[in-house]
Amino acid sequence: MSQIEFWYEFASTYSYPAAMRIETLAAQRGVDLVWRPFLLGPIFAEAGWRDSPFNLYPVKGRYMWRDMERICASLGLPLIRPQPFPQNTLAATRIAISLEGDGRAAFSQRVYRAEFGEGRAIWDLATLSALIADCGLDAAETLAAAQSDANKAKLRAQGERARALGLPGAPCLVTDDGEVFWGNDRLEQGLDWVIARS
Amino acid sequence: MSQIEFWYEFASTYSYPAAMRIETLAAQRGVDLVWRPFLLGPIFAEAGWRDSPFNLYPVKGRYMWRDMERICASLGLPLIRPQPFPQNTLAATRIAISLEGDGRAAFSQRVYRAEFGEGRAIWDLATLSALIADCGLDAAETLAAAQSDANKAKLRAQGERARALGLPGAPCLVTDDGEVFWGNDRLEQGLDWVIARS
Repeated sequence: MSQIEFWYEFASTYSYPAAMRIETLAAQRGVDLVWRPFLLGPIFAEAGWRDSPFNLYPVKGRYMWRDMERICASLGLPLIRPQPFPQNTLAATRIAISLEGDGRAAFSQRVYRAEFGEGRAIWDLATLSALIADCGLDAAETLAAAQSDANKAKLRAQGERARALGLPGAPCLVTDDGEVFWGNDRLEQGLDWVIARS
Repeated sequence: MSQIEFWYEFASTYSYPAAMRIETLAAQRGVDLVWRPFLLGPIFAEAGWRDSPFNLYPVKGRYMWRDMERICASLGLPLIRPQPFPQNTLAATRIAISLEGDGRAAFSQRVYRAEFGEGRAIWDLATLSALIADCGLDAAETLAAAQSDANKAKLRAQGERARALGLPGAPCLVTDDGEVFWGNDRLEQGLDWVIARS
């Protein structure tokens, strides 16, 4: 079966609608999906950005928020601007990468909904514990695994791979033949690329 | 009849496939198209960028060129990287804005084809004269009109409007109700927005 990697960052606004759309789009095409959480901070820092480009460049930021309103409205998704924006996503990303398969996907979607649909503080361990429990997982056990040295190393390795792949932002689809498709508006093309070559 | 404005900058890579696609997409939906050439330089300068963001941020640049290869291949458009990139587009933009209606559209498409499909120097007045002639227009007369004070003022006013609209880049579609859709991959959504409200 064909597969594709879905790379996402919890602070990334456009990753929210993408995370909510991608499973259906992949299933429709019979493509297996691998969820790849990563941190954009180190990649952006190399570009000299110590904050979200949407904060650093207000013209882009204003456009993005209006665009997100339209996109979420068209998908029937609630949208609340996180305060502050961006949220610190280290803890959530460690949890996501510590989980596997369906658990990782379910937790990741739960985080996006909490952050952008409910306005909750997804940097906060109490919030994250509640979100883990929402997914039917044991919060204490999951948090402990997320904070293990092995899991921290796993996240760092994921970041190295993101850098090696040249991911310019999030979300991205990455194909087995090394193609990158960046943006919520490119999910269909990325999946169709895989189908055309399978 | 519904209408939409197509804002483009000759140095903008993604404006090339957009300029080649937009007329068919608009005609299919029965939407009138107004071509709006403008200069991104002053807008980027306000963000602190003195060069193309694709040069300033190599990760974004590498992604963009590969993405352009895929897009142009899928549309059957030739792609040659302009040398240097970006080209100085002041003269071409003055010519485009001095023309009206179909002449502006034809000249603009001719410039994009020369720049990104044929690797020609679109900052050069000799090249531009040839491109004007390709459109069945008088080169000397057109160049004189383009360099008039009135036309220079017209381009500056267009730039002020681009800033007031908050255009974050190019290409953009702008609707009568003030919505902005940024990117070659958003042309369909922008046109469909107009249709849904007509």
